[in-house]
Amino acid sequence: MAVAWRCAQRGMRVVVRDPAPGSGASGVAAGMLAPVAEAYFGERELTGLLVASAARWPGFAAELTAASGVDLGYRTEGTLVVGLTGDDLAEARRLWAYQQELGLAITPLRPGQLRDREPLLAPRVRGGAWAPGDHQVDPRRLVDALRVAAERAGVTIVPEPVRQLSDVDRQGPVVVAAGCATAGLTGLPVRPVKGQLLRLRTPDGAAPGFRHVIRGYVDGQQVYLVPRADGEVVVGATVEERADRQVTADAVLRLLRAAVELVPGLAEYELVEAAAGLRPGTPDNAPALGPLPGRPEVVVAAGHHRHGIVLTPLTADLITDLISTGVPDPQLAAFRPDRFTTDRIVEGQPWS
Amino acid sequence: MAVAWRCAQRGMRVVVRDPAPGSGASGVAAGMLAPVAEAYFGERELTGLLVASAARWPGFAAELTAASGVDLGYRTEGTLVVGLTGDDLAEARRLWAYQQELGLAITPLRPGQLRDREPLLAPRVRGGAWAPGDHQVDPRRLVDALRVAAERAGVTIVPEPVRQLSDVDRQGPVVVAAGCATAGLTGLPVRPVKGQLLRLRTPDGAAPGFRHVIRGYVDGQQVYLVPRADGEVVVGATVEERADRQVTADAVLRLLRAAVELVPGLAEYELVEAAAGLRPGTPDNAPALGPLPGRPEVVVAAGHHRHGIVLTPLTADLITDLISTGVPDPQLAAFRPDRFTTDRIVEGQPWS
Repeated sequence: MAVAWRCAQRGMRVVVRDPAPGSGASGVAAGMLAPVAEAYFGERELTGLLVASAARWPGFAAELTAASGVDLGYRTEGTLVVGLTGDDLAEARRLWAYQQELGLAITPLRPGQLRDREPLLAPRVRGGAWAPGDHQVDPRRLVDALRVAAERAGVTIVPEPVRQLSDVDRQGPVVVAAGCATAGLTGLPVRPVKGQLLRLRTPDGAAPGFRHVIRGYVDGQQVYLVPRADGEVVVGATVEERADRQVTADAVLRLLRAAVELVPGLAEYELVEAAAGLRPGTPDNAPALGPLPGRPEVVVAAGHHRHGIVLTPLTADLITDLISTGVPDPQLAAFRPDRFTTDRIVEGQPWS
Repeated sequence: MAVAWRCAQRGMRVVVRDPAPGSGASGVAAGMLAPVAEAYFGERELTGLLVASAARWPGFAAELTAASGVDLGYRTEGTLVVGLTGDDLAEARRLWAYQQELGLAITPLRPGQLRDREPLLAPRVRGGAWAPGDHQVDPRRLVDALRVAAERAGVTIVPEPVRQLSDVDRQGPVVVAAGCATAGLTGLPVRPVKGQLLRLRTPDGAAPGFRHVIRGYVDGQQVYLVPRADGEVVVGATVEERADRQVTADAVLRLLRAAVELVPGLAEYELVEAAAGLRPGTPDNAPALGPLPGRPEVVVAAGHHRHGIVLTPLTADLITDLISTGVPDPQLAAFRPDRFTTDRIVEGQPWS
């Protein structure tokens, strides 16, 4: 939807084929814009892309809000990364040392400083750090806003599925931004990675008593808490190599237990939703951005895995540039779809 | 609905006024028919009523199934009462010693015997007992069946609420069986007692791997697990002196934790529903059955608290007898509505 909006702004005639925009991973995602706290060992190229896209978020959010009139729930208090036990803190420290080495902004805090920032954190929390550049947005509002902005810019949304690429009545380039369904449409190795998360609400509808996104290492588990101004707190998320969308007792139990360990006051919150979504993952967990091998008129923008929301502005801009000019931006080089052994790619044949 | 069915069977013309039959406590209840495991210290009169009603269940279930064609999910494997820790077992033992003293059927089992009956019980479970007469039924199916049977017997269901008793276009006796709403209609001291519970399902839709109802004392908490042949397992329930129907993080966490402590395999089950209902409780937690003080033409059948499902057959029979003959059965003596200081009862004024 973001690509469609950007293309329409450049004067292209755009048709989006989607039976239910926002009903996939975007409708479940928590919306952390977290290039720093999501920077993992061995993913330098991806981290660079996350940082570059996060840098576009303030301008993108302002422009989209103005174009749509929709409040995105965009918040910039930043993220606290915390460890509950000594072991948890040691694990978190290893990662933030690496993040600092990459030049990312993350500041260790003493327990007292942590509690000054968020008094509701459990007394047991041993320590943490602040990632000031890791912001958040509400993905459901984001999809609504993109849809309004796209339609206002002249995009036609046709609520019908595309079962195969030859179904598309093509008078120009085709962009495949179909999440997990990209595998079936293109043959690219995009697999579903199940994530379960919860949505809580303050009992009285007021804003939650904490303002930062909190990412916790809790007795060897990871959990994040995303507070929204409208009273919602998202608690996420499992990462499971499964393709079903069942909510399991185990996942709900682990998420709630970890959440309440970090912020005991969450026990009194209402549980309003437990949901599962499917992230589109590639073999290297980085997105596929660029022409489909052997079919330059088909451009892929998929496989964003855990990073679809933070990568929205940059993906939209780079793909729109590619379609407008025919020339790929150098930032796309590491994310070309043909990096996945192209000779095995056959349309309609999912990689296995 | 059960009173209506019974009255119609005796040839009375019956109108039920209810905008949504079964949408109250009956639609949330777990459906344990548990006179023994529900026999608490100091509730001898109520225990007698529970035992008498449970004795009617086999015949009632058979007759209702035949009359409606609806499978009630009625099961007679009985209930295992178990304690997780030594302290939990000691607490459970105190209660079942009292139950044995009352002459109720409850047989202590050694841990090996427990596991022979239910191999999925956690190895940590210290011991328990079997209440062979504590059965179960699916309350949602029960309400469906009663509705079908009542309509087939000639009952008219008018899907409109009754806001006050004077709204009822009366050509004969009126039965107030309105759960918590009975307070507003009659002035009787019926208060809401919130209960939260969960519904799990086997991942593959098969029957759960255990057949008995399991009532557990788990680290000082009580929880019950009700397995249904269709793959559902009900996990309940909180008992809260509150009138809201919010599902809270704390309740879900406690119920899931206790359930998984007792039967670890439940972790893999799907969580399909978390719900809250309001039990209609009276000051002594026993139902109000009989004429409204000062208004003999108005008969109350309400305030069943945790026992609405098990008390269904006997309530229906005794209230129908009372209406037919005008003479109250001796079993009703301890449950007369006028036991709640009648001089303070004013129609339309909830007790406070």
